[in-house]
Amino acid sequence: MYLVAGTSKLTCKGREAAAICRPQGSDAVVAHCWYRRKREATPGAERRRSTVKAEVPVTTTDERVLWVDAPSRKYPIIFRNKPSLHDSELFAPHISGNSVLIVTNETVAPLYLHRLREGLSRCPQVDRVEECILPDGEEYKTMDSLRAIIDVCMQKRLDRKSTLFALGGGVIGDLTGFAASVFLRGIPFIQVPTTLLAVVDSAVGGKTGINHPLGKNMIGSFYQPHAVIVDASTLKTLDPRQISAGIAEIIKYGLICDEEFFNWCERNVSKMVSLSPGAIQYAMERSCQCKAAVVAADERESSGYRAILNLGHTFGHAIEAATGYGTWLHGEAVAAGMVMAAEMSRRLGFIDEQVVRRIEAILTEAALPVRPPPSMNVETFLTYMAMDKKVERGVLRLVLLERLGKAIVTANYERQVLVDTIEYFRRLYQEQPENYERRLAHLRPK
Amino acid sequence: MYLVAGTSKLTCKGREAAAICRPQGSDAVVAHCWYRRKREATPGAERRRSTVKAEVPVTTTDERVLWVDAPSRKYPIIFRNKPSLHDSELFAPHISGNSVLIVTNETVAPLYLHRLREGLSRCPQVDRVEECILPDGEEYKTMDSLRAIIDVCMQKRLDRKSTLFALGGGVIGDLTGFAASVFLRGIPFIQVPTTLLAVVDSAVGGKTGINHPLGKNMIGSFYQPHAVIVDASTLKTLDPRQISAGIAEIIKYGLICDEEFFNWCERNVSKMVSLSPGAIQYAMERSCQCKAAVVAADERESSGYRAILNLGHTFGHAIEAATGYGTWLHGEAVAAGMVMAAEMSRRLGFIDEQVVRRIEAILTEAALPVRPPPSMNVETFLTYMAMDKKVERGVLRLVLLERLGKAIVTANYERQVLVDTIEYFRRLYQEQPENYERRLAHLRPK
Ligand SMILES: NC(=O)c1ccc[n+]([C@@H]2O[C@H](COP(=O)([O-])OP(=O)(O)OC[C@H]3O[C@@H](n4cnc5c(N)ncnc54)[C@H](O)[C@@H]3O)[C@@H](O)[C@H]2O)c1
Ligand SMILES: NC(=O)c1ccc[n+]([C@@H]2O[C@H](COP(=O)([O-])OP(=O)(O)OC[C@H]3O[C@@H](n4cnc5c(N)ncnc54)[C@H](O)[C@@H]3O)[C@@H](O)[C@H]2O)c1
Repeated sequence: MYLVAGTSKLTCKGREAAAICRPQGSDAVVAHCWYRRKREATPGAERRRSTVKAEVPVTTTDERVLWVDAPSRKYPIIFRNKPSLHDSELFAPHISGNSVLIVTNETVAPLYLHRLREGLSRCPQVDRVEECILPDGEEYKTMDSLRAIIDVCMQKRLDRKSTLFALGGGVIGDLTGFAASVFLRGIPFIQVPTTLLAVVDSAVGGKTGINHPLGKNMIGSFYQPHAVIVDASTLKTLDPRQISAGIAEIIKYGLICDEEFFNWCERNVSKMVSLSPGAIQYAMERSCQCKAAVVAADERESSGYRAILNLGHTFGHAIEAATGYGTWLHGEAVAAGMVMAAEMSRRLGFIDEQVVRRIEAILTEAALPVRPPPSMNVETFLTYMAMDKKVERGVLRLVLLERLGKAIVTANYERQVLVDTIEYFRRLYQEQPENYERRLAHLRPK
Repeated sequence: MYLVAGTSKLTCKGREAAAICRPQGSDAVVAHCWYRRKREATPGAERRRSTVKAEVPVTTTDERVLWVDAPSRKYPIIFRNKPSLHDSELFAPHISGNSVLIVTNETVAPLYLHRLREGLSRCPQVDRVEECILPDGEEYKTMDSLRAIIDVCMQKRLDRKSTLFALGGGVIGDLTGFAASVFLRGIPFIQVPTTLLAVVDSAVGGKTGINHPLGKNMIGSFYQPHAVIVDASTLKTLDPRQISAGIAEIIKYGLICDEEFFNWCERNVSKMVSLSPGAIQYAMERSCQCKAAVVAADERESSGYRAILNLGHTFGHAIEAATGYGTWLHGEAVAAGMVMAAEMSRRLGFIDEQVVRRIEAILTEAALPVRPPPSMNVETFLTYMAMDKKVERGVLRLVLLERLGKAIVTANYERQVLVDTIEYFRRLYQEQPENYERRLAHLRPK
């Protein structure tokens, strides 16, 4: 079945690997990282498993594992660099029942469904691999798609031990996780993220959900997967815009809790954009570590700390909603939103202009927009922002930067500063529309 | 606002009260019971709150509180004997936000909505009382009704601090709890059960859910309310059939975990049927204690222990489904199902015939059916039972009686015994159809 054994062998070659191996401290990052190496089973050899704890990320030729230690469940994020979806040994240890259902969409299915199907079919305990292929798009992250998944679960008589697999980006991950959390009041599910954004953000941490016609992610649950399995080779078929959208979230982690990582991102942004293996692997792991640490500290957003992950998101959600979902990608809207949050933080005296410029520069280098759509005025922003889940008793809490590498969640700001911030961008546009539009990276023809 | 203070004053008058006060041990019942007495606020007096722990139920003139100590949340069940829905002091301590939404149905709304509305409106912190009135019936416990509740939540801009109130029976409670668990990934909700079944079963323990066209309660969550508030005077408008259905679940507790309580039920069944205050109050509390104890031990049915609460339910669900939901009430189907489970337990040598007869007798006295519908054969039963949530990898676990007062959950039975049990009832019908039909209490004209 499944074999992991042997001693750890840390291989760090060349400049990039050296950089990756260097310990880079951060208060917030407390997630542990275990190294695990697979060995061919010699016939009849006893099955063994050993894990070696390493304090810093390391590069290896095969597999790397990071653990998320959330209060409700502890689970691994397993990274593979080579095509691995067909590898039953990767999946078998995480499946308890004899039936599985792969949920994916019409774009991802032709690319990867057959491989995952092959991998799962070969797991000794699995005798049924069912599938549910949804249309592609944020506009299908709805109650109807949830119903479609559950209809398949019922028709195929899945039971409490069955496992759902989410094969795709954040939309498929959020939908599948939600379905898994409510079918029979909760069955196991495994995230197999195939977008950079899903790897570094949506697949980890247990937020699941669907959209309501009046607001995004308004319906959902906190429900951790049983494992997150990353085959990084799947990222190669991604549209460059989608890669940039993922990088926005990677940069976010530097901003909210890891200044050193932000500095590293500044030096390596072009390597990330081109998916250079060492750089993207390191960026994914460090991002997942950041996310895991935040989730471990505040899984259900009860202390409010977890909300720091939403830097740029309140502005971003307003942009996504006002322009019509799908026009701006989530990561793009977050990028512009982070610039707005940074500008507001500057106006409140938390950070200086220089930091705002650095943020704009790195996002621009990642081909991300750094301005809100010129069509949005104060009223539009405030209307959409009022729908935010962080609103309590009519008061909107915002995620702001206290300094580079530290975000805070606060309702303690003058409303006028928020208004001024939004108006500032309007003015920038009015003064120099062409210069402004140049900063809306995704609108530029490729 | 809200005042509870003073020393405990246990009043036990007359024979019935004395019976109620007598400690009656049971291994499984570990829930605690606090006694709380309300006192008129003298103007300017400091607000105090004190609870006095009592080991056994006690009768008082005003309010009684039982705590459910579930791993995910500890919350009170508050019992009032007098009309109390208009009493803001009852609700105010359990509401954190400034907006509330009452979910109810077209039958309950004309009876009690105005009172609860009045009570909630007078809570000092509440400035908005919204309402959502659904059609009445098990057939509306669907995804569409869930959507209807969430639409109101969105349209009325409820936020994370808003509280949902479930005013009604188990259908409204399950639906509202599910909506509360997924709206914004979870907001507070309070159960205000108005059927006996809801008081003693569905309102306590945190199982929420909706039906799927192919199966009952197939979609849902584990989500505890913030409080359960029982105004027992609302039970007076219930149809006698509904009261009997509730008594089925009360008797169930005796059977599964509390032999003494079963004995008490035998002596008091006619008092329960007539809603005699002392008897029904004691029965409700002891039932809630049993349920609270099971839920505290196994909130999410992970050890399997919680499944003992499903005695009679696997047979019962098959009856409900095969006859068309609503033809048999849930409690009625459970009654017949408990007789079937008892008969099967007897065939397995766990209990003797005498116990089966006692169970039939008490259920009959409570005007409950003690036979499955004659139309259902082995195949129908097995087909519907295969949809049970307790099926794992194709194996159906059943709740059986090891002895009176102790249920077990097991897959370790000969399938033939199950088949024989079902056939036994078929034969009973074939031999003496009239005698058989006489045991189907709810089919008899009133
Ligand atoms: N749960 C969370 O914590 C969380 C966090 C962030 C974002 N989200 C959600 O995630 C969603 C966005 O995720 P996303 O950016 O992955 O969007 P997505 O799921 O829509 O994927 C983007 C596009 O890439 C396609 N695609 C996916 N994998 C591919 C591959 N390997 N090759 C080629 N094409 C591929 C998809 O079909 C889609 O067209 C939003 O709904 C957002 O709300 C959730
Ligand atoms: N969540 C759980 O743990 C759990 C446990 C047991 C049952 N249930 C569920 O509960 C439901 C059954 O509950 P129920 O028996 O309360 O059914 P119900 O909610 O349908 O109520 C029964 C009938 O009584 C009416 N009614 C309610 N209160 C009334 C009052 N005070 N006066 C007059 N009429 C009133 C209702 O409108 C309805 O017509 C089922 O859906 C079952 O699956 C859930």
